[in-house]
Amino acid sequence: MAVKTIEWKKDRVVMIDQRLLPQKEVYRVCRDYRAVAEAIRGMVIRGAPAIGVAAAMGVALGCLKAAEKSFDREFDRIVLCLSKTRPTAVNLFWALERMRKVYRENRDRGVEAVKRLLEEEALKIFREDIAANRQLGRFGAELLGNARHIMTHCNAGALATAGYGTALGVIRALKESGKEIEVWVNETRPLLQGARLTAWELKKEKIPATLITDNMAGYLMQKGAVDAVVVGCDRVAANGDVANKIGTYSVAVLAQRHGIPFYVAGPTSSIDINCPTGKEIPIEQRDPAEVSHIFGRALAPKGVKTLNPAFDVTPQDLISAIITEKGVIHPPYAQNIRSHVDH
Amino acid sequence: MAVKTIEWKKDRVVMIDQRLLPQKEVYRVCRDYRAVAEAIRGMVIRGAPAIGVAAAMGVALGCLKAAEKSFDREFDRIVLCLSKTRPTAVNLFWALERMRKVYRENRDRGVEAVKRLLEEEALKIFREDIAANRQLGRFGAELLGNARHIMTHCNAGALATAGYGTALGVIRALKESGKEIEVWVNETRPLLQGARLTAWELKKEKIPATLITDNMAGYLMQKGAVDAVVVGCDRVAANGDVANKIGTYSVAVLAQRHGIPFYVAGPTSSIDINCPTGKEIPIEQRDPAEVSHIFGRALAPKGVKTLNPAFDVTPQDLISAIITEKGVIHPPYAQNIRSHVDH
Repeated sequence: MAVKTIEWKKDRVVMIDQRLLPQKEVYRVCRDYRAVAEAIRGMVIRGAPAIGVAAAMGVALGCLKAAEKSFDREFDRIVLCLSKTRPTAVNLFWALERMRKVYRENRDRGVEAVKRLLEEEALKIFREDIAANRQLGRFGAELLGNARHIMTHCNAGALATAGYGTALGVIRALKESGKEIEVWVNETRPLLQGARLTAWELKKEKIPATLITDNMAGYLMQKGAVDAVVVGCDRVAANGDVANKIGTYSVAVLAQRHGIPFYVAGPTSSIDINCPTGKEIPIEQRDPAEVSHIFGRALAPKGVKTLNPAFDVTPQDLISAIITEKGVIHPPYAQNIRSHVDH
Repeated sequence: MAVKTIEWKKDRVVMIDQRLLPQKEVYRVCRDYRAVAEAIRGMVIRGAPAIGVAAAMGVALGCLKAAEKSFDREFDRIVLCLSKTRPTAVNLFWALERMRKVYRENRDRGVEAVKRLLEEEALKIFREDIAANRQLGRFGAELLGNARHIMTHCNAGALATAGYGTALGVIRALKESGKEIEVWVNETRPLLQGARLTAWELKKEKIPATLITDNMAGYLMQKGAVDAVVVGCDRVAANGDVANKIGTYSVAVLAQRHGIPFYVAGPTSSIDINCPTGKEIPIEQRDPAEVSHIFGRALAPKGVKTLNPAFDVTPQDLISAIITEKGVIHPPYAQNIRSHVDH
């Protein structure tokens, strides 16, 4: 059964609440763009491609409900509100830019026409994302070849996208091609997207998986138990540096020490050609309580200070290849990413 | 206020229940050696030096209560029972061997005399451990010099020892010498000894500390926010390889990449000169539920498979120096550890 991460329902957007998985499957109904923005900010929906789709649907929903006489002001307000939800995943800004372009190019056709075209564009972004994931999954499956024991960090699955997934798309495609694989799932503190979401998706797919704490990755690599690592990405800079969920960098450093290939999978919408290197990628700092508490209970003494960067940057020299729906990007990235995007 | 990790009370051994800290300060009373063994196995008490002290007290307690006519058989049974509790920390076997030696060398003086001498030996091991920690703390503080931002993993504090601590002993000594320091505390999944115990000890000492998830260590090093790492040890092999809490290896690999010194602190009782390398150190595998559950609640989908190695091995080439109560051991370890121990 495929997971329905997000659905467009004409006058509302429906999302599975990822904060409650896997214990509860609750669907949240967003009836206006502010609710969509809140869902992105609060991580009801997360994962760079899924955030992009949600933002596009948020614009479409907001515009549908906007009055004709204040439409232009309202359009700007909607896009601004959605753009302020989360700073790191570039797919958010990419999706908003696509919506802005449709608005710009069709504004003179009248408000009703623009509303219809914005809805169509949001659905197009949704459908393209699934298609891109299936395509990059095939490229990735070919690239990973006979890797049997694959490690992944965080959740870059159907839940992180419109469907199928990026890193998990590669893993799904490997399974579909008949390969016998086993997956090491890093739990991914603090929000446990690996334990809660990736383990849940893999169980549904009947792909053998073993959950570990993040700090066990090195132990397994040392034992020779990891053939390849594949992760998603929130933003790929023009030089090949990759921002992804906190802890990705540590896994990449460990993989390099053990000569294990480290692959990044994502649609070209995750590439930010205007961002020269990882240094320019803004890293979101989230609520300290996400680190000090779990299920609302304190893990640490009261008043403890915590830090909570949601992402880190893996420098391009640690990345074996980047897999997109257009193919596989190999080093040297500075030149190959540009030609890949222009292609 | 100094933490009372473990206390000898003539006819019983009292320990603070470390599984419940920092939320609850509950003291467990062990009235026989089996209760002590269970407390070690269940991690009421943990940390290599503390396990050694507890095992010695367990032998003394068991012998005190043993009948004269079955004393020798009972002695063997007590030592065997305690030796089976946890496999990795060598301090356990070291302490049992010290108790065995007292028994062997004094058995002919009669059961009552041996009982008294075993009690004295257990108390001696307890007192020596605190003294060793204070001494190694001073050596460590000198070695770390002007390091200001120090990272530690797990808990190698007063709670992991008879008192004062090893890695935290170094940190305490730095503070006592007037240095302004700040500590990065890795939470240390799955049992969160960093979040629960180290953060609690540092708070009591008023040493500024910031809690992070284990997978944030690389991010901080990349930012230049870590001057040195200091950790404890469960067993040091003759070649300098070190077994310590799971995740230590990852921190060491990251430290090396960033040119950050990585120090190991422990009493000489943690050195196992009969263990040639880290490969021969047995790594305890614990209950899978420690990974899949927290506070009794599932983190992951039901039936998820997990792995739970309690320790990993950091190879000697990643270790900048080993600090003991006799001084600082520098590379090459194979030769310097032997002369350090013989000294």
